[in-house]
Amino acid sequence: MSKELVFGHQKPDTDAITAAMAFSYFENELGYETEAVALGEPNDETKYALNYFNMEAPRVVKTVANETDKVMLVDHNEPQQSAADIDQVTVTHLVDHHRIANFNTAQPLWITARPYGCVSTIITELFQEKHIEIPANLAGMMMSAIISDTLLLKSPTTTDHDGEALKYLAKVAGVEDYEAYGIEMLKAGTNLAAKSDADIVDGDAKTFELGDAKLRIGQVNTVDLDDVFSRQADLEKTMQQLNDENGYDTFILIATNILNSDSDLLVVGGNTEKVEQAFGKKLGDNHRMNLPGVVSRKKQVVPPLTDVFEG
Amino acid sequence: MSKELVFGHQKPDTDAITAAMAFSYFENELGYETEAVALGEPNDETKYALNYFNMEAPRVVKTVANETDKVMLVDHNEPQQSAADIDQVTVTHLVDHHRIANFNTAQPLWITARPYGCVSTIITELFQEKHIEIPANLAGMMMSAIISDTLLLKSPTTTDHDGEALKYLAKVAGVEDYEAYGIEMLKAGTNLAAKSDADIVDGDAKTFELGDAKLRIGQVNTVDLDDVFSRQADLEKTMQQLNDENGYDTFILIATNILNSDSDLLVVGGNTEKVEQAFGKKLGDNHRMNLPGVVSRKKQVVPPLTDVFEG
Repeated sequence: MSKELVFGHQKPDTDAITAAMAFSYFENELGYETEAVALGEPNDETKYALNYFNMEAPRVVKTVANETDKVMLVDHNEPQQSAADIDQVTVTHLVDHHRIANFNTAQPLWITARPYGCVSTIITELFQEKHIEIPANLAGMMMSAIISDTLLLKSPTTTDHDGEALKYLAKVAGVEDYEAYGIEMLKAGTNLAAKSDADIVDGDAKTFELGDAKLRIGQVNTVDLDDVFSRQADLEKTMQQLNDENGYDTFILIATNILNSDSDLLVVGGNTEKVEQAFGKKLGDNHRMNLPGVVSRKKQVVPPLTDVFEG
Repeated sequence: MSKELVFGHQKPDTDAITAAMAFSYFENELGYETEAVALGEPNDETKYALNYFNMEAPRVVKTVANETDKVMLVDHNEPQQSAADIDQVTVTHLVDHHRIANFNTAQPLWITARPYGCVSTIITELFQEKHIEIPANLAGMMMSAIISDTLLLKSPTTTDHDGEALKYLAKVAGVEDYEAYGIEMLKAGTNLAAKSDADIVDGDAKTFELGDAKLRIGQVNTVDLDDVFSRQADLEKTMQQLNDENGYDTFILIATNILNSDSDLLVVGGNTEKVEQAFGKKLGDNHRMNLPGVVSRKKQVVPPLTDVFEG
């Protein structure tokens, strides 16, 4: 039998990469034969963490059915966020912290979903429940994933479980000041000068089918919103181009200041009135709206959009 | 805040009733305020177990949104097997051992799904993982649910987890000979003489939308297939009537001999060729086919039908 592949969503962030590595390790300890892979290259933040903890990035794949018939999904369940040929393989395990959408199986399977800030937190608890030790460098990556997903426990998606797991993992990893490490890691992921326009708008983007509309929602973290919007005209051009090429009705870019936890939305395409309705706010002539305290796509952006587009 | 309601599928069997009772108890121990309810009256088998362990059946409800806005589902996830107004409430927890189908949520939630023979086995492990004690009479019900779903560990859906949980629960419940108890309980559920034709064909039936077809699949356990098929003409009339009233394309009744683990399928309605293709066998002039070793609707009947109807 070929190995089962374990992977997170397309355009992987630190949690998508790390959760695959951690869950693959966990399942191998239980006796499965698995390999962690990724549906894309690690981003700058993830590279910083991998380098710090001296670990290798998982092999990048685009399709999976060519090498296995069984897979384990982490950090996503919606088919359009998964491998291109996900419909040709059997999902045997899922670990996730997102809503469930269009995830249908022919057979019963293993699912552990918990409404936490980070999948690596769920996997930390799975290790604890089974009394399996986490290697120090893997614990460092899992700690990094929690810092990334919760913006150092400041995102509203953060739960007590994330805080406890973060502190536990820091100890296992031998990291004394996880806040100092976390700020350096988050900054490493916000070097926008080196990024192309497409990287900024689409590097962390996900597609959402809400009602009849196909929305693309990207997010970029920064320590200064001007680093994003000094390039606004070029970013809008790229967003329009991606809309045209991929049939997105609306492209929304969430530009998040990770130091003060505010975001600006930049909206290109149709449905602007619905977006305004979702947040109870008008878009400016510059196609932007400021949303103080909004840092979470999953918890603060997608739900109000879902209410309006599917309401 | 009103209590969260916890419930299993329509036409509840022993596991649907018991898993709701057990998961409600478990979540209350964790600090939630929940009440176990049921989407129907207990069947004769469940009544036997409730009586034996001196427990009350959960309150029966048809709708839930009139008394709560949050629910926990056990032993089902497909909306058409749930409360009539399930789309009007938020599912916060799901514990299940079925395939996932058309289960979509707006928000992240708690899911524990494991491909075991019985949901009460999963819940037993949840109690163990959290080091929470199971009261003796509740353990007796959970033991009964495992016996029911796995036909005393003989069904092909049975896993090692079910066997271990069954033995553990028997000890907690103080039942020395769980096999002797189990045979009496299963027999109590097969008193067909006292049942109406509608009870036999539809009492444990579920609806499956496979491809473009709407199938109703019922199952009846017996210790003698003649007890079922001596009434075949009347049963077929009832199945045809239920097809007409509810828009089912095909009604399949699985009559299972629990002593020798064989089943006869009785098929009324269209798609008979697809049913024959699914099992590689012709229906007799009596609209029946014998399937030796087949006792599980979920594992041995629905999957081959799904392959053909959706293939």
